Amino acid sequence: MPYIKIELTREGVSREQKQALIKGVTNLMTDVLNKDPQLTHVVIQEIELDDWGFAGEQVSVLREKGITADKK
Amino acid sequence: MPYIKIELTREGVSREQKQALIKGVTNLMTDVLNKDPQLTHVVIQEIELDDWGFAGEQVSVLREKGITADKK
Amino acid sequence: MPYIKIELTREGVSREQKQALIKGVTNLMTDVLNKDPQLTHVVIQEIELDDWGFAGEQVSVLREKGITADKK
Amino acid sequence: MPYIKIELTREGVSREQKQALIKGVTNLMTDVLNKDPQLTHVVIQEIELDDWGFAGEQVSVLREKGITADKK
Amino acid sequence: MPYIKIELTREGVSREQKQALIKGVTNLMTDVLNKDPQLTHVVIQEIELDDWGFAGEQVSVLREKGITADKK
Amino acid sequence: MPYIKIELTREGVSREQKQALIKGVTNLMTDVLNKDPQLTHVVIQEIELDDWGFAGEQVSVLREKGITADKK
Repeated sequence: MPYIKIELTREGVSREQKQALIKGVTNLMTDVLNKDPQLTHVVIQEIELDDWGFAGEQVSVLREKGITADKK
Repeated sequence: MPYIKIELTREGVSREQKQALIKGVTNLMTDVLNKDPQLTHVVIQEIELDDWGFAGEQVSVLREKGITADKK
Repeated sequence: MPYIKIELTREGVSREQKQALIKGVTNLMTDVLNKDPQLTHVVIQEIELDDWGFAGEQVSVLREKGITADKK
Repeated sequence: MPYIKIELTREGVSREQKQALIKGVTNLMTDVLNKDPQLTHVVIQEIELDDWGFAGEQVSVLREKGITADKK
Repeated sequence: MPYIKIELTREGVSREQKQALIKGVTNLMTDVLNKDPQLTHVVIQEIELDDWGFAGEQVSVLREKGITADKK
Repeated sequence: MPYIKIELTREGVSREQKQALIKGVTNLMTDVLNKDPQLTHVVIQEIELDDWGFAGEQVSVLREKGITADKK
């Protein structure tokens, strides 16, 4: 009975990317824990950039400064 | 001190239905646990159909296939 | 696809009371929203009294002062 | 590694107030627990008034009755 | 800035399986969304079988009946 | 009606530190948003080091390597 909540900043995540996240997390539960996918629920929650704080700053402010969450 | 979070797919839940959920959950806390309603908070969060995954699929895709969450 | 999280202070909730909460919340989802119980998951999380704060005080401190969460 | 979620009713919280919440919570983690701010994430989630229930009533109904959450 | 919460029934998940979940979810965030792993936090929460309800029943009761969450 | 959840790695947080977190967050809600403390609930959840992942690694592994979450 896994339930997985994914919280992300809202920065243009596409429908296809969401599907890939859902499929990937569900498969992981089966691969690692042998969980029946019929019992796995995944919820994605996008958070506005003003509403996520990192290191004491709003992500909207970090983005204005050119600081991203991209892998280098 | 109960706090209850209800996550639902966003599919036309009315204001009256939300009120019925809030009232019902709050009463349940009093009936089962004798909790003071003044200490019970209930939060409803509706999730877009692209953002809820079940069995590895987006609920939006399941609905397009005619698969619902209705009780048979 | 409802998912419901119930957070409670850990103060002697019995297995039977937990079952009553699960049954009651699941029935509510069916009664109000016509949801299939096979798609309803309920998670109960008990919180230690030192870990729940109300009005700026730990519940453990409130209980020592004789302040309960009981319905009057 | 603190993660903090702040859930609030959506009632005109400004960008500056959100920044003050993020800064304040992050500083608190450093002051009380000596946590590196680079490891502290804060997420604010605003909840519609129809979606928050208190004492068995929707907050939207309480507000119509003139009942606020303001400190007296 | 992804934060992922994985809720599971407590049924003998090993340290190695937890590591595989954390690694897998973090990699997924990089593969699908190009997220910097230094900004990805994953939290696993194991739930006692009495505290998870599915289809109106405690999972502890389902397990006593021989009903598992295993993939067939 | 604020509800705040603080998730922390379980690494010797004392009762006094928890009280300071609860008091500090509650005061912040009053200072920034003028919220009545009687409507502010704070829940602290400590997470085992095997159950928190950062940058794809369990925090228990990071700690064995001497990597802390302390402010430098």
